[in-house]
Amino acid sequence: MSTLDKFLEGDVFALSRVISYVENQRDDYQKLLARLYPRSGKAYKIGFTGPPGSGKSTLVDKLACRLSEQKYKVGIIAVDPTSPFTGGALLGDRIRMQNLTSYQDVYVRSMATRGSFGGLAATTKEVALVLDAFGKDYIIIETVGVGQVELDVANACDTTVVVFVPESGDSIQAMKAGLMEIADVFVVNKTDREGANRIITELESILELKREKEKWEYPLVSTQAINNVGIEQLQSRILAHRKFISENGTLKQKRKMQVKTELKEIIESKIKKVLEKKVFSTLNLDKIAEDVLKGEDDPYSAGERLLDKADLF
Amino acid sequence: MSTLDKFLEGDVFALSRVISYVENQRDDYQKLLARLYPRSGKAYKIGFTGPPGSGKSTLVDKLACRLSEQKYKVGIIAVDPTSPFTGGALLGDRIRMQNLTSYQDVYVRSMATRGSFGGLAATTKEVALVLDAFGKDYIIIETVGVGQVELDVANACDTTVVVFVPESGDSIQAMKAGLMEIADVFVVNKTDREGANRIITELESILELKREKEKWEYPLVSTQAINNVGIEQLQSRILAHRKFISENGTLKQKRKMQVKTELKEIIESKIKKVLEKKVFSTLNLDKIAEDVLKGEDDPYSAGERLLDKADLF
Repeated sequence: MSTLDKFLEGDVFALSRVISYVENQRDDYQKLLARLYPRSGKAYKIGFTGPPGSGKSTLVDKLACRLSEQKYKVGIIAVDPTSPFTGGALLGDRIRMQNLTSYQDVYVRSMATRGSFGGLAATTKEVALVLDAFGKDYIIIETVGVGQVELDVANACDTTVVVFVPESGDSIQAMKAGLMEIADVFVVNKTDREGANRIITELESILELKREKEKWEYPLVSTQAINNVGIEQLQSRILAHRKFISENGTLKQKRKMQVKTELKEIIESKIKKVLEKKVFSTLNLDKIAEDVLKGEDDPYSAGERLLDKADLF
Repeated sequence: MSTLDKFLEGDVFALSRVISYVENQRDDYQKLLARLYPRSGKAYKIGFTGPPGSGKSTLVDKLACRLSEQKYKVGIIAVDPTSPFTGGALLGDRIRMQNLTSYQDVYVRSMATRGSFGGLAATTKEVALVLDAFGKDYIIIETVGVGQVELDVANACDTTVVVFVPESGDSIQAMKAGLMEIADVFVVNKTDREGANRIITELESILELKREKEKWEYPLVSTQAINNVGIEQLQSRILAHRKFISENGTLKQKRKMQVKTELKEIIESKIKKVLEKKVFSTLNLDKIAEDVLKGEDDPYSAGERLLDKADLF
C-alpha cells in the first residue's frame, strides 16, 4: 500500500511522511498537494501569536486537549524562527507529543526554519493544507511575534489569538506595531503574576476604541494555562468569532482571499524555479559578477538589461 | 541641493532619508541603488548573530566605539524580526543613538520587519549598500537566531560572529542547528555569570574538530561587553579573519557570490513586480478562487494551466 493510500486511511506515520515530503519540496510535491486539495477546506484554522515565554504552547496544548475531549481532531503547527537557540523546534515536538500522548487525535508538528525551501510562511500553509486534507477539524498555528512570516500566517488563519503576559511591558507599543490589526481574540496569560491587572486595564482601554468602530466584541480572556484556568472561556470566544465571521460573510471572503494569495504564490514559486533552471543557468553570471567587482557594471543595471533582452511580457 | 548631493557630501540626515527611501521601495529606488553601487565595495561587513538577551547589541556598540576611536566610520544595522514584542526596533535606535552620541561616525539603523517590502534580507542588504556607498569602513549587521533571513544576511557578510551566553543552554543543539556552518568567530559573553566555564569547554571541544578539518583557527573569545572586557580581543580576531580570507582568496570568492545572489534577487524582484502589474491584474483570480472554493478547481492545477498558457520561457 502506498504512503498516500495509508494517509487517506488516517495513518499517522503516513501523515508525517507526507508532511516531510511537502516540507522538503520533493519531486512533484505540488502535484501531491493538488491531489489533496479537494479534500481540504473543512478545517478551521486558528492562529496563536505571542512572545517567547508567554506560555503560548501550553495554552495551545490545553486548548487542543479540550477540543480532543470533545471528539474534534486537532493539528498543531509550531512556527519558531528562533528555534535553534530556544531548542523549540528540535526538542519541542517530542516533549509536547509526550504530554499529549493520551490524546490520539492531536498531532503536533514544529516548523524548523532551516530547510524551508519555499519560505516559511508558504511551507506552513502547505503543511496546514495536508493536515486539513487528513481530516483535522481544527488546525492551530503558533507563531512568535509579528514579522512578515507571522503576518502571512495570520492572513492564512480564520481566527487569530494574541497572547500577552504581565511581563509584556509596554503593550501599547506592541499594539502600535501591528497586533491590533491582526488579532480577533486577546489573551492575558499567567494572570496570577504581578502586573496582570495593569496590563488588562491597559488592553481593555485600547479595545474599547476598537469595539466602538467595529461590530465584533474583541474579547480579552484571562488565563493561567498551566493551571488549566480560562481555557473553556478561550474556546468559547474563539467559537463565537467563528460564528460571527461565518454569519456575516467574512469567513467566505477570507477564504477567497486565501485562495487568491495561494494562487499568486504558486505562480511565483513556479516562475522562480523556471528562472533558476532555464534562465540563470544560461546567463554568464560569473562574467557579470566580475565586471561588477571591477566597477564596470552594477547588478541593478545588469538585471534591467537582462530582462529587457528576455522580453518576457 | 538635492538629498543625493547632500548624501554624497556626507550629510547624516540625507543618509537617513536615502535609507528610508530604499526601505520603502519608493519610485525608481533601484535606479538610485544603481547610482550608488559604484561607490560601494569598500566597507567590510561583519555579521553578529545570537539569542535575544545575549548582550549582542552592547557588544556591537562597544566594538563600534572602539573602531570609531580608531577613526573608522561604522554603520550598524539591527535586524530584529520579533521587535514589536521586545520593543527593539522602536525604542532601540533612540537609546543606542544616545549611548553613541559622542561617536559621530557611528550610525545605527534598526530594520523593522513590517514595511519591509522586498523581504527583510533583501532590504537589509540594500541598506548595507547605502551605508557602504556613504563611506562607512565597517558595517555591522545584527540578527537574532539563524532563520532563513539570518542565513541570507550571514551570506552577505564577510565575517560572521556568533554570540553565546552561559544561559544559552544546550550549545551543541544550537551547533547542530546550523550555527557551526556560518560562524567564523565565536563569542561567549557575560562570562562573569555561572556556567561560563561549562559552555566554553563545550564549545572548545566542538571547535577542536572544526579546526582540524579547516585552516582557519575558529577563535572563541570571552567577553563581558557591559564592562568593556574582551572587546579588544574580539576586534583582533575579526581582523585576523579578515586578513585570512583576504589572503587566501576567500573574500574575493565571497564577494563574487554576493554579487551573483544580488543579481538573481534583483531579477526575481523585478519579475515579481511585472507579475503583479501585468499578469495577475489580467487574470480573473476571483473566478478561479470561486471555482476552487466550490471544489471545481485547485490552485496548483490552475497555476500550472496559467503558466502553460503564458508560455513564458
